[in-house]
Amino acid sequence: MKAGILTIGDEIISGFSVDTNSVWLAQELLKRGITTLKKASVGDDPEAIREVLARWDGKLDLVIATGGLGPTHDDITKTAFCQYFNSELRFDEGYWELLIERFKKRGYDIPANNRAQAEIPIKSVAIPNPVGTAPGLQFRSGTTTFYVLPGVPTEMKAIMTEQILPEMGSGDMVPILTLRTTGIIESALAEKLKHVVSALKGIQVAYLPAYTGVDIRLRALEPVVMTPDVIESAAGEIESILGDLVYARGDTTLEEVVGKLLKERKETLALAESCSGGLASSRITDIPGSSAYMLGAVVAYSNEAKIRHLSVDADTLKAHGAVSEATAREMAEGVKSVFNAHWGVATTGISGPTGGTTAKPVGLVFTAVAGIKRTVVREARLVPHRLPHKAAASQVALNLLRLEILHHG
Amino acid sequence: MKAGILTIGDEIISGFSVDTNSVWLAQELLKRGITTLKKASVGDDPEAIREVLARWDGKLDLVIATGGLGPTHDDITKTAFCQYFNSELRFDEGYWELLIERFKKRGYDIPANNRAQAEIPIKSVAIPNPVGTAPGLQFRSGTTTFYVLPGVPTEMKAIMTEQILPEMGSGDMVPILTLRTTGIIESALAEKLKHVVSALKGIQVAYLPAYTGVDIRLRALEPVVMTPDVIESAAGEIESILGDLVYARGDTTLEEVVGKLLKERKETLALAESCSGGLASSRITDIPGSSAYMLGAVVAYSNEAKIRHLSVDADTLKAHGAVSEATAREMAEGVKSVFNAHWGVATTGISGPTGGTTAKPVGLVFTAVAGIKRTVVREARLVPHRLPHKAAASQVALNLLRLEILHHG
Repeated sequence: MKAGILTIGDEIISGFSVDTNSVWLAQELLKRGITTLKKASVGDDPEAIREVLARWDGKLDLVIATGGLGPTHDDITKTAFCQYFNSELRFDEGYWELLIERFKKRGYDIPANNRAQAEIPIKSVAIPNPVGTAPGLQFRSGTTTFYVLPGVPTEMKAIMTEQILPEMGSGDMVPILTLRTTGIIESALAEKLKHVVSALKGIQVAYLPAYTGVDIRLRALEPVVMTPDVIESAAGEIESILGDLVYARGDTTLEEVVGKLLKERKETLALAESCSGGLASSRITDIPGSSAYMLGAVVAYSNEAKIRHLSVDADTLKAHGAVSEATAREMAEGVKSVFNAHWGVATTGISGPTGGTTAKPVGLVFTAVAGIKRTVVREARLVPHRLPHKAAASQVALNLLRLEILHHG
Repeated sequence: MKAGILTIGDEIISGFSVDTNSVWLAQELLKRGITTLKKASVGDDPEAIREVLARWDGKLDLVIATGGLGPTHDDITKTAFCQYFNSELRFDEGYWELLIERFKKRGYDIPANNRAQAEIPIKSVAIPNPVGTAPGLQFRSGTTTFYVLPGVPTEMKAIMTEQILPEMGSGDMVPILTLRTTGIIESALAEKLKHVVSALKGIQVAYLPAYTGVDIRLRALEPVVMTPDVIESAAGEIESILGDLVYARGDTTLEEVVGKLLKERKETLALAESCSGGLASSRITDIPGSSAYMLGAVVAYSNEAKIRHLSVDADTLKAHGAVSEATAREMAEGVKSVFNAHWGVATTGISGPTGGTTAKPVGLVFTAVAGIKRTVVREARLVPHRLPHKAAASQVALNLLRLEILHHG
């Protein structure tokens, strides 16, 4: 089945409101084997709405429109659908009684402008709204079914979940699997995988790059002929080629992976952050239960802080500079020692915009992990922009920690 | 001028990626008097792309397409535009040299499949990408100008900001002004402002709530008849009612405001973070130049770390607990002292999901600021969910610092 999602509202097209409805809808449909082929957004404008309906009618099996059904929107959406389907309105006494009752229960008299919400297009079926006053509507035209839903996410989701989705299948019809990689750029990843990917049948492979790594998403193209085993076997093949480059499946984060490893081994962690400025610690402490292994961190932005709180040697700073292999090593070993942790992690680099030189440009970072058996330091040139650099530097450091725990823990 | 925004990518229509690009684009266009009339999203499907281009060509003045310019097999946007505009590709040696050089600087050999990114459609103009490998493209057809940009938000924004938006006006043609508040909930804010808001003519007021505060957006309804003075006068009136609750205008963050205050006063800062876990420090260090005032931080997740690194008295922890007014006070004073800073800021609270009790429920936080003249501690009950709690706790702490600098600095 092929679907289209139409989001309606001046707020959406003028950029004041992020459209999360269509994201949720597309995911729920996909899980049921329904592919969203198109999305469109228009303002509170009946002509623009009708134009989209005309374009999708007969070409798609399912159209879901959201927005413009509230009492303050003058029923623009309902008007547009009535015009398109050439439908009159009928006043639904039963629905009106239900609304009056619902308001009474909450101790209110119903405002007069809610009356319009009991006007149902004759050519539609009203769908009860369990959490709001505007009912959803269903229209049919040939092979295309149209749903019109309120734009308030809780109302839209309630109507979909309780009334519409149950008719569309169980929600586990399309196997989707994401492999998360870090430490390799998208083009190099695609190069490594080109043979295995081109040999896959019926599976779509997508690369989703970010500064912190590239996700590989595997998705069955044809729900009916695929089983989870096929996706699983493709994922296994890719993992065997990529090895350690894959740190997780699904939406698991690197900080969750590291946290799980530390928890299982009953080992502890302390961080010494310079260029990442607290971000790596914040990521570690995003995980519920992280206090079991996270002892603490020192954000050492100044040389004095590195000397005083991390026992970095003043001579090291003088000889090699704050951004150097030697300083990173002493920071990691220092924080491990002062917190008496099993693992010490350090970052020192140049996030920019200023502070770069030819020898040490903006983007340079040294990350270090002082572990149970050894200390390692890695030099990397990351994106030379402050916020992505912080994100990437924290990722490189946590990934180095992951690899050291796995292989030298 | 009328614009359309086309976002391209299977991940967008299948619900794996929230489209923030079109939100940002619509806002930036609106500020320049350009109205976005339509938005559309299609998958990595040349035919669907061409269909949208055909529909908008000649009807809109400006079309901005994002996504699908990467180096891998699923990036087909350039192909679709070449088909639509009937354009061949030429290999741009100069651009290829530039890419090789850029990879070399970061210590990589360029992968062969990046070569395709140096292939420029003959009928387009390439627009340099300051932060990535795929250039933007500009096509013209009659009165319609088309831009094709990478889907990675930082790359799209960099190309827009540096290359395209400067040609589209100054960004203040439609007066929009945002006042940023923190420390008051939306309904209380609306109550305080109801008289002034109802008296405003020709200005739309919207409240945009988040866990870190509520933004108040003032927007001229009719660009032609409005002048910035009218918005300015309304903003001034609101600010005089709200006083200190407003911390900034526009998209200025609280960490920028605090950073500016510290820089002007040549004063320094150190942080002691428990429940916020490094997030407050990370926010402070997000600001370029923050090393001028940020000395460092201690993330003290364990009691031992609070005693050892922040000089918190073991008896205080025993008598009052880690989450207490007394501990917060000693953490702020301790970190101020050990870093020898002008200002010490502390957070201690219960982010959850576990660790709450009836007396000290999940959501509770104590924030403290040890300043030049005094130390203050504030107790607050924030949202009882881990990540929003961390965000809100860091906001409360930084806002307390702002108020102390302003009134007791």
